[in-house]
Amino acid sequence: MEIQIPALSKAQLSERLAVLKDEYNKYKALGLKLDMSRGKPGADQLELSNALVDPGLLGNNKASNGFDVRNYGILDGIPECKKLFAEILDVPVDNVIVFGNSSLTIMYDYIAQCMIFGAGAEPWSKQSGIKFLCPVPGYDRHFAILEQFGIEMINVPTDENGPDMDMIEELVRDEKVKGVICVPMYSNPSGITYSDETVRRFAALKPAANDFRVIWDNAYCVHHVGAPDKLLNIFEACKEFGTEDNFIEVTSTSKISFPGSGVAALAASANNIAAIKKRMTVQTIGYDKINQLRHVNYFKDMAGIEAHMLKHAAILRPKFDAVLSAFDKHLAGKGIASWTVPNGGYFISLDVYKGCAKKTVALCKEAGVTLTGAGATYPYGNDPEDKNIRIAPTFPSRDELCKAVEILCICVEIAAIEKILEK
Amino acid sequence: MEIQIPALSKAQLSERLAVLKDEYNKYKALGLKLDMSRGKPGADQLELSNALVDPGLLGNNKASNGFDVRNYGILDGIPECKKLFAEILDVPVDNVIVFGNSSLTIMYDYIAQCMIFGAGAEPWSKQSGIKFLCPVPGYDRHFAILEQFGIEMINVPTDENGPDMDMIEELVRDEKVKGVICVPMYSNPSGITYSDETVRRFAALKPAANDFRVIWDNAYCVHHVGAPDKLLNIFEACKEFGTEDNFIEVTSTSKISFPGSGVAALAASANNIAAIKKRMTVQTIGYDKINQLRHVNYFKDMAGIEAHMLKHAAILRPKFDAVLSAFDKHLAGKGIASWTVPNGGYFISLDVYKGCAKKTVALCKEAGVTLTGAGATYPYGNDPEDKNIRIAPTFPSRDELCKAVEILCICVEIAAIEKILEK
Repeated sequence: MEIQIPALSKAQLSERLAVLKDEYNKYKALGLKLDMSRGKPGADQLELSNALVDPGLLGNNKASNGFDVRNYGILDGIPECKKLFAEILDVPVDNVIVFGNSSLTIMYDYIAQCMIFGAGAEPWSKQSGIKFLCPVPGYDRHFAILEQFGIEMINVPTDENGPDMDMIEELVRDEKVKGVICVPMYSNPSGITYSDETVRRFAALKPAANDFRVIWDNAYCVHHVGAPDKLLNIFEACKEFGTEDNFIEVTSTSKISFPGSGVAALAASANNIAAIKKRMTVQTIGYDKINQLRHVNYFKDMAGIEAHMLKHAAILRPKFDAVLSAFDKHLAGKGIASWTVPNGGYFISLDVYKGCAKKTVALCKEAGVTLTGAGATYPYGNDPEDKNIRIAPTFPSRDELCKAVEILCICVEIAAIEKILEK
Repeated sequence: MEIQIPALSKAQLSERLAVLKDEYNKYKALGLKLDMSRGKPGADQLELSNALVDPGLLGNNKASNGFDVRNYGILDGIPECKKLFAEILDVPVDNVIVFGNSSLTIMYDYIAQCMIFGAGAEPWSKQSGIKFLCPVPGYDRHFAILEQFGIEMINVPTDENGPDMDMIEELVRDEKVKGVICVPMYSNPSGITYSDETVRRFAALKPAANDFRVIWDNAYCVHHVGAPDKLLNIFEACKEFGTEDNFIEVTSTSKISFPGSGVAALAASANNIAAIKKRMTVQTIGYDKINQLRHVNYFKDMAGIEAHMLKHAAILRPKFDAVLSAFDKHLAGKGIASWTVPNGGYFISLDVYKGCAKKTVALCKEAGVTLTGAGATYPYGNDPEDKNIRIAPTFPSRDELCKAVEILCICVEIAAIEKILEK
């Protein structure tokens, strides 16, 4: 059925609605409980890393520098773990700090410390009306951090090449704009990867603020699902412009090994590394080095990481395909929805008929399908067009997922038709 | 030799000094490298917890609530780990939050967040001239946190019952005084435990500030070396006065299992727990639950912890005894030094002849014995009488320790005699 829903007559819409509601009610009667709300690995993905807890991986408990990983010490990570992250992020080892279990916490703490101590200038908390630029749709937990610190967020639209760089170049001329927070590769939720030109324009930014920081959340740098995208190395791009200090890059093994029990890391310029370490030495004696050693000896190197990620991809690809083929089957050509087709990451971004995201999510909920809340992909939970929904296909089993997506497609269409009929 | 050094004649002092210098130079010629500087467990203590990395402890990776510990989720700790810390701290489970690997980091973050968001009133960073009371001698890392945040520190002298409570009661009448930071049990470095009366007077404090917090760092609550001290439960003591909101208690397994790879926890009133969780939900998705499950299944309960701590005590007691008997042998009755005799914790506090701590530490250093820096036990590294040295007997082997303490005793006496001769 290839029909442009908005072009139908009221009678045709009502007829179609009745059919859809019938299908919807049948699903509803099943009393399902399906969760597509969060970017969590599925149970089968967790099984891939079970051997990570093998005590044999710890050998004699010594890091490569002879340090006993069971005791206090080593602020910035054991050498071999720094090296592994240096390979993953393609930066020199000296530009890496290994932290605890979460890159989210690294970002939170970095911004908290900019609030209290500043980023080389007045503490952000002492400067009134500071702002961050937020490519949208984006990651709700990024926005939650900025909101908690009272940093004003400005939406910057994104297309398949990344955020609108004309707009960013213009906005950074305001010295109240202190930074950008973004996921440059397999972006959350769109799954797109910033083009080389976008990355170069980021590197070339000349912000008015001398305490400007881009939080470059490279969460999905090795998380390919299809043919790998390639992200230009931001620090390489910066060299031409001498702007390395503008960027704080983070990543983690949360979706490589175990979420919550992985290892996270930060990459930054020598200046930023020195400033961060200076504060860090007061915040901690050091992070979990046993877990660092465990990870290095399990994955060994970049080749080991890549081989492991192929196993994740083999599990995830059918799930992404299930969603995309259902969208193709039920929504394509109807003029009421569009979506991204990512090559990696954890999400698909679905745009439904304008003004219908909240309604769609509510209808799904009523039928037992939990989605990420509508609006979550925008600062303050406010999607100005009420149309974006983040689809997280990884956690449910493929069977559950197929059912959930069928229901979702019905809800998308019901919400659209009801909206059109209202007019 | 029982002689009061300060009572000797110049000639006698010079003669004694020559003998000591001779001994000192013999040690110096050995080119030793001994470290008594930090409160680190020794290698033999680390061996006690090796079975903690046994994967069998993780069973089917499920927490008691059925949650897969390998995945995202559970903000405040798996239920059984909360329960374990509730037992350790003798508080209700609902008043516990389990964090990551470090109670130092919990304290840092708590104070950071008081700076940015306040403790129920104006953010501390927006109130000028705020102060904390610091029982001295105290823990250098506590002071480093307060100094980094620009919080003025006021010394409060401590005796065998705890800090001078008359002074604290008086000082908290200043609304700029926002709190106290202390180790109430087996204090760092004195090893003393606050008396019941001291704890009750803490509970009864009526600070002028309505955003007053005592950071009650109960790091050594189960770390007995001799006959156990008993610390009155601060939250029990608070009940009479309704002052529960004034206290933030922390502890960790850093010196129970592995430093850096343990689990840390916080106990607080319902109000404080709610406020902390609200911010925490933005800072993290959750801490390392695999490590939490590992710890609970290894130690099981308070009885398991106590049995394990007896093994630590068996290793530590001879080390404490070595230091104390050397002090008795070489320093007792000479009128140039006094020291504490702790029943637990990680330290002994040594007071040398007034004005001689720096000199003593420098002499030790020159002879290959590294001590905690003189002054470290005071805010800003400034021991006004230059007399306190923190002795950390745990890390060296007993043989190394015996040698180090011999040298230390010589240095204490040399520094004292030289000081007296200067007069």
